[in-house]
Amino acid sequence: MKKEEENKEIVLAQHPSRKPTKSTFGINDIDMPKVKEGEVLLKSLYVSVDPGMRGFMDKGDDDAAGNKFEINKPITSRTVAQVVKSDLDNFPKGAIVHGRFPWQIYFSLKTDALEKVDPDLAPISTAVSVMGVPGLAAYFGMLKIGKPQKDETVVVSGAAGAVGSIAGQVAKLQGCTVVGIAGSDEKIDYLKNDLGLDEGINYKKTENMQKAIKEACPNGVDVFFDNVGGELFDAVFADANRHSRMVICGQIADYNKSNPPVGPRPQHDLIKMSAKIEGFVVFDFKEEFDTAKKQLGEWLNNNQLYYKENLIEGFENIPSAFIGLFEGENIGKQMIKVSEAE
Amino acid sequence: MKKEEENKEIVLAQHPSRKPTKSTFGINDIDMPKVKEGEVLLKSLYVSVDPGMRGFMDKGDDDAAGNKFEINKPITSRTVAQVVKSDLDNFPKGAIVHGRFPWQIYFSLKTDALEKVDPDLAPISTAVSVMGVPGLAAYFGMLKIGKPQKDETVVVSGAAGAVGSIAGQVAKLQGCTVVGIAGSDEKIDYLKNDLGLDEGINYKKTENMQKAIKEACPNGVDVFFDNVGGELFDAVFADANRHSRMVICGQIADYNKSNPPVGPRPQHDLIKMSAKIEGFVVFDFKEEFDTAKKQLGEWLNNNQLYYKENLIEGFENIPSAFIGLFEGENIGKQMIKVSEAE
Repeated sequence: MKKEEENKEIVLAQHPSRKPTKSTFGINDIDMPKVKEGEVLLKSLYVSVDPGMRGFMDKGDDDAAGNKFEINKPITSRTVAQVVKSDLDNFPKGAIVHGRFPWQIYFSLKTDALEKVDPDLAPISTAVSVMGVPGLAAYFGMLKIGKPQKDETVVVSGAAGAVGSIAGQVAKLQGCTVVGIAGSDEKIDYLKNDLGLDEGINYKKTENMQKAIKEACPNGVDVFFDNVGGELFDAVFADANRHSRMVICGQIADYNKSNPPVGPRPQHDLIKMSAKIEGFVVFDFKEEFDTAKKQLGEWLNNNQLYYKENLIEGFENIPSAFIGLFEGENIGKQMIKVSEAE
Repeated sequence: MKKEEENKEIVLAQHPSRKPTKSTFGINDIDMPKVKEGEVLLKSLYVSVDPGMRGFMDKGDDDAAGNKFEINKPITSRTVAQVVKSDLDNFPKGAIVHGRFPWQIYFSLKTDALEKVDPDLAPISTAVSVMGVPGLAAYFGMLKIGKPQKDETVVVSGAAGAVGSIAGQVAKLQGCTVVGIAGSDEKIDYLKNDLGLDEGINYKKTENMQKAIKEACPNGVDVFFDNVGGELFDAVFADANRHSRMVICGQIADYNKSNPPVGPRPQHDLIKMSAKIEGFVVFDFKEEFDTAKKQLGEWLNNNQLYYKENLIEGFENIPSAFIGLFEGENIGKQMIKVSEAE
């Protein structure tokens, strides 16, 4: 067996009690997969890790979408891979694909699990970042649920992250005043200088968030694109305008809590302001993915959309990259480069 | 001075600390109003009392809409009145009007505060019940925010009240399965036998509301039209479906609480279910009032909409009628008949 055909997998070793740790994961040497009829052999190139995966790691019944990870089974996430062995004309050797794939260096799958990536359109890693689920979540959450209008004020939390960084820019492209919330001065710098947002708030250095938001948003908040939740939501909601839209994209503040979080009931204010709080998942809009990708690609090509991928090298570093998401240190989309495309 | 020209007013005597009581109100003998140029003299016929008025009785800054009641000033509410003295051709003596009028037997107003009532269309009292704000709130909240689709399951709380009783029937007219929540067996009877709802839950006799809702709604809840809030919301929300819509119309459970209520944060479930919680006030839809009244009038005339007005006689009984709203005993729209139309 040649060296490049050594295979490994990363499995869920145990359910995390709160934050995921190294012992949440197990790494195993495994055989090269047997490729059955109708399948192709794939090699992982770029593995994406997302905070939302934390919810699939808990004990409990599977959800309707079959998302829960099982003990001693490989974890799955959005991944860019390359076909390295194929008898099938539509997915020939060398083809680049993406999908929700197991954390294995090599794996085999039927082709209905694969979506093609056009390497001429954009760098292939973007299939799991700006042109993939994070970019689409930002696009649909902002435009279809937030519906920002020209000159409105939009606040984005987790604004330096994979989704937030695109969401803020999409709102800027609609002619809005955009305020980003993030957790380091480096990130605030990134928001203002790289993404072109109007204002940034470092919540870790801010004692009174409600006051800081009122100062940054003198006309009130029309759209809040929230990746964080918890008390940060309360602070922004306190400055929300009539007919405002709270777009709930993520709740990273709560993912690692053992008890269901409690907070002020928003209903009374929702009536007073004729406002809404709405959650979504990107697959609600799957009929419109092609339209969205076309628009995102156009903005990318016109340099109207800036994106940053935070690449870590090496398959065995996937767990620490995932754990790092909850330390709040990454700027842009966190990805692991497993192998080079051939 | 003739006996019928004795005049009285009811004022806010003090801010209620929690529930309104008799000492919240003061009743005064007052002079007959002087009718200035451009004004007409009006006599109250039907005064409406609504739970939502409780929010205007608290101490604090006025809201943008100028809704707050002032100490020793007359309280105002939706009222049907008759013009008893007028020099103006468009509002002659005898004309029936409605609007937000002071709690006074006689009062004078400029005509821009008056909306005409057509006595041939429906009984004039309906201008502040099914054809007025409560009916319009039910119509717009259900159809524009809840958007119930045929065969979906709709739950209405406060289902025997002024708004809820119309909201439930509007959902039935869309071909939905409708479950009403109310607080007495008499009301449950009314929901099922007079309003034609599919199921009723007496929350006062139900130990486990969440279980009761799951049993009454085996296919889950698609739309919740909530007039109550608090833990009742949590119980219904626990059975909410993907893409469900929580319409927040009222929060009678919370109006009399001194501290802002807390509860489970809904955001995580909103994401999982791609669901929304949305508040509204009826005046959001004022451009469409005429369309809605036409439809409500049509349903009334076709006997497709049943309504009940709970009439108490006598101007001096307005405060106790208002206080009674929070005892949860009224079925249908609570109104006070002050005088007979001439």
